[in-house]
Amino acid sequence: MALRTALLFAALAAAVSPSFAQDEKAKPKSAQEIIDAAPASDWRSLDPANTLYLELAGGRAIIELAPDFAPAHVANIKTLAREGFWNGLSIYRSQDNFVVQFGDPEAGEKNAKAQGSAKAKLPAEFERKAAGLPFDRLADSDGWAPEVGFSQGFPAARDPKTGQAWLTHCYGMIGAGRDVAADSSNGSELYVATGQSPRQLDRNITLVGRVVKGMELLSVIPRGPEPMGFYDKPEQRMAIKSIRLASEVPEAERTPLQLLKTDSRAFADAVESRRNRRDEWYKHPAGHIDLCNVSLPVRAVAVKP
Amino acid sequence: MALRTALLFAALAAAVSPSFAQDEKAKPKSAQEIIDAAPASDWRSLDPANTLYLELAGGRAIIELAPDFAPAHVANIKTLAREGFWNGLSIYRSQDNFVVQFGDPEAGEKNAKAQGSAKAKLPAEFERKAAGLPFDRLADSDGWAPEVGFSQGFPAARDPKTGQAWLTHCYGMIGAGRDVAADSSNGSELYVATGQSPRQLDRNITLVGRVVKGMELLSVIPRGPEPMGFYDKPEQRMAIKSIRLASEVPEAERTPLQLLKTDSRAFADAVESRRNRRDEWYKHPAGHIDLCNVSLPVRAVAVKP
Repeated sequence: MALRTALLFAALAAAVSPSFAQDEKAKPKSAQEIIDAAPASDWRSLDPANTLYLELAGGRAIIELAPDFAPAHVANIKTLAREGFWNGLSIYRSQDNFVVQFGDPEAGEKNAKAQGSAKAKLPAEFERKAAGLPFDRLADSDGWAPEVGFSQGFPAARDPKTGQAWLTHCYGMIGAGRDVAADSSNGSELYVATGQSPRQLDRNITLVGRVVKGMELLSVIPRGPEPMGFYDKPEQRMAIKSIRLASEVPEAERTPLQLLKTDSRAFADAVESRRNRRDEWYKHPAGHIDLCNVSLPVRAVAVKP
Repeated sequence: MALRTALLFAALAAAVSPSFAQDEKAKPKSAQEIIDAAPASDWRSLDPANTLYLELAGGRAIIELAPDFAPAHVANIKTLAREGFWNGLSIYRSQDNFVVQFGDPEAGEKNAKAQGSAKAKLPAEFERKAAGLPFDRLADSDGWAPEVGFSQGFPAARDPKTGQAWLTHCYGMIGAGRDVAADSSNGSELYVATGQSPRQLDRNITLVGRVVKGMELLSVIPRGPEPMGFYDKPEQRMAIKSIRLASEVPEAERTPLQLLKTDSRAFADAVESRRNRRDEWYKHPAGHIDLCNVSLPVRAVAVKP
């Protein structure tokens, strides 16, 4: 069917897994075929102690936290989650081609929700020392940073001159909203990038993790009519049932996920197959891929009996 | 209110227009202030003969066509619109962080809708000669193309070695779905980029224009459960009331819009103010902007009495 094949090979993170035919051995492998053939050792499981479950009416979004980049924010977020801070709060902002934001719509006001034992203010965690940090560098040029790649599965950048590294604002990354002061965030108000990657925010705000499953629940939230996508009526907000640490959820209710290691051969090969498309559909392989066009392969794993 | 200012200055296309205070004269102007101060001559009106109105239950999306880049496709699309081809058809695909696609869900099948006097096949219009084409070049580097900028308001790229120019797959750009053969599109099945810009498609498929208003109607369409975002049930599709050429709509029902000229001083200044943010919120101006992070200023104009 013409239209269904129309953009077939253009899919960035195609869920399609074409079966191997014996006579197709000569064909270059697709990214999906490379991923499917990756050995078990190329996959890592999410650490439940650094995983959040965001429960919405439409389902569960799963967030991997980045404690090595934002230790103070991640610690505070874990406190907030443990104490049920977000339960019953909402997604109160959705700005087209930019972010959705959630937490307490009354934050900063008199009737703001109490934040229990969480800290009210944290230091800015915009960047950190690159030394000692794994970094799977992409060969591709990037206008925003001297070096880009992945660190522990997160899109990241590095500057050899300053010796600093930082997480980058790719689609699905989560940051901690702040006021004008650099140290005015505490992780209670979080935003998720939902459009063209807003890389101008890199090193200007603390990124705390990324959505590894369920972005489609967040990206479709109706845009708010107010400037910057805020809703003008409380009933337009989307309720948050709960945000919990996976480690505090009974094992039977957890979502077992694995992510392809970004230092694996399969990951490098999958990126290369996207950088230079070798299938029939592509007439002009780009020879390049932007950091934020690289998708992180995720798969469900069978729960142990 | 802390959270409402939290990402204030981060807005890519902020609708906020801070009023000038006398004592703020020394402050660098924001992009919005620059745009607001642009003279009337820096604005152009949409040409009704190259503008489409896509009518959905939620409102009207407005598309500007690019006849200088895709003359054959634009001519065919105008024929299809004039003859009401899309009226009663649907958006039948929404793939997260990639595209929505619309037209005839039965395209290529026995019960496909007849396409009247439109051509069934067109030549590929992936690129064209750069000679004679206006090009407002960005100084910024780009991993996908040797030169990038704007041509007649559209994001575009150019290669001085080959003398070719092409439109680029930024958020909101519209292309003509095709099968494996380069010349298998005719403009009846169209897609709109709704996530991180899929620049790997540049020069691989014919871009025909862009959504200049109403992207928020398209970007929030629930993602389809099938591979590549197709819906598995016809009732999940979003109905298209009609797609009409603005020139065929009574003047009183048209949406009067103006776009900031990309060869204007105001546009260059607004881009620079985003490339190097000078407001208090930004602690680390990027010194760079990606082509697809540049937003095209659009404003409503009063209808003549």
